[in-house]
Amino acid sequence: MTVAAHTITARVRYPETDRMGVAHHSHFSVWFELGRTELMRGIGCPYGEMEDREDVYFPVVDLGVRYIRPARYDQVLEIETRLVSCEGVRVRFEYVIRDEGGSTLATGHTMHASVGRDGRPKRLSGKVREMLSSGMERERNRC
Amino acid sequence: MTVAAHTITARVRYPETDRMGVAHHSHFSVWFELGRTELMRGIGCPYGEMEDREDVYFPVVDLGVRYIRPARYDQVLEIETRLVSCEGVRVRFEYVIRDEGGSTLATGHTMHASVGRDGRPKRLSGKVREMLSSGMERERNRC
Amino acid sequence: MTVAAHTITARVRYPETDRMGVAHHSHFSVWFELGRTELMRGIGCPYGEMEDREDVYFPVVDLGVRYIRPARYDQVLEIETRLVSCEGVRVRFEYVIRDEGGSTLATGHTMHASVGRDGRPKRLSGKVREMLSSGMERERNRC
Amino acid sequence: MTVAAHTITARVRYPETDRMGVAHHSHFSVWFELGRTELMRGIGCPYGEMEDREDVYFPVVDLGVRYIRPARYDQVLEIETRLVSCEGVRVRFEYVIRDEGGSTLATGHTMHASVGRDGRPKRLSGKVREMLSSGMERERNRC
Repeated sequence: MTVAAHTITARVRYPETDRMGVAHHSHFSVWFELGRTELMRGIGCPYGEMEDREDVYFPVVDLGVRYIRPARYDQVLEIETRLVSCEGVRVRFEYVIRDEGGSTLATGHTMHASVGRDGRPKRLSGKVREMLSSGMERERNRC
Repeated sequence: MTVAAHTITARVRYPETDRMGVAHHSHFSVWFELGRTELMRGIGCPYGEMEDREDVYFPVVDLGVRYIRPARYDQVLEIETRLVSCEGVRVRFEYVIRDEGGSTLATGHTMHASVGRDGRPKRLSGKVREMLSSGMERERNRC
Repeated sequence: MTVAAHTITARVRYPETDRMGVAHHSHFSVWFELGRTELMRGIGCPYGEMEDREDVYFPVVDLGVRYIRPARYDQVLEIETRLVSCEGVRVRFEYVIRDEGGSTLATGHTMHASVGRDGRPKRLSGKVREMLSSGMERERNRC
Repeated sequence: MTVAAHTITARVRYPETDRMGVAHHSHFSVWFELGRTELMRGIGCPYGEMEDREDVYFPVVDLGVRYIRPARYDQVLEIETRLVSCEGVRVRFEYVIRDEGGSTLATGHTMHASVGRDGRPKRLSGKVREMLSSGMERERNRC
């Protein structure tokens, strides 16, 4: 049930490379986060506002990355993000990172808990849930 | 068949925290790498020398992290690393990160390919394989 | 003698914030580098090509940053970069980072040495020097 | 009037290197911060407690780094930190980073403002000032 997809681009920065000459593996989860951030903004639910106005935080509770090809300095990456599920206090995103020619460099997922500032589980409010759902709906119809 | 374990400590640095007030999730794989680096050094096979003298690189091909409790600023982390398997051109490590009281903050794994500078698969040389194996043996006997 | 100016935008990323709730000071020099990279690309002298084709590297030999206002999560930064001088084996850039309303958040400079892969000083080739000069000229005329 | 010195060591991490094969220049200010953190702890004034108990933050308002030699992967750095002055709402530290052989890799300084959680200038409390002063005194006598 993949429901909301979003694609952005990001260039590999110099300090993201390492002495192997390619991007260090730890940056892929940062690129995932960029994709997730823009997906959330795109469905009318900017992450910063969720934290500041709704007191809802989405810490990562599970991360998986499969690295297929290296990402190189100055390369433009296409980051596709899908909001796959959103139930109770769990939200799951899936990602594909491609180079400009469409070759897949990495795939992955993040699972998030919905918590309050105090770190305790917190069910998504009706308002947030509604934005996520209508955003998903909109994306589905666009496909 | 867990074969070589190694525990080091590392403090959470200020820039590793984010505005949620805890360590950003992307740094856990960096801490995994610190653990892996010291395990390799401990079994007589420092990573830098492997790259420089043996032309063997270990890029990460698969990463998994399960986040259980947040890591806080200035907290001393215990990073336990196990070299779990080493076959053909694949090497697998597993990790547990605990706080000073022994509570588990995160667990995870990395799978690495053995490649040359050109990025092509490269079987581990007899020398490297021997160091890894004898290191594993030593660890096993120590337990 | 300010000679080539270039302005780009970049958003403050979540992992660039720290537990003080604002961007960590170490990221400003990364934003300077983004500005410098695009200025170089803009004058026909992409940094990656300089390294790969000309064997010219521009390590930073001096950095100065004056922090005036904090940069906040998700804020869009305007990064203005000027190529101020380029003589012998020294190249100097100056930077201003502003928020969307035009308020200055930080100013700074970097001085770079021109070196080869071996780290030794290396005078800029006629080709690189020409590109830098004509780029400067173009910028000057545009103002 | 150099008043409190402190030396720690830190190893260059793999993700701190870049494709030039050496540590990226942005990490030096992180190493400065490590030195500053341990100096503060050493004089009985841990930075985290200052933030949490005294509501005093020390954002960097000015940073200067002079890069002399590159720092390499896995190299053990000696970071010497001096608390140079502490007046009103300004605190200044100076740093020298050396390799194991004692060669200087970089020097630098940071100037910090003393502010409250709200970001407004906040004079150091008598308690914090006293700890800093007695720490300085202790260091001076040790020399």
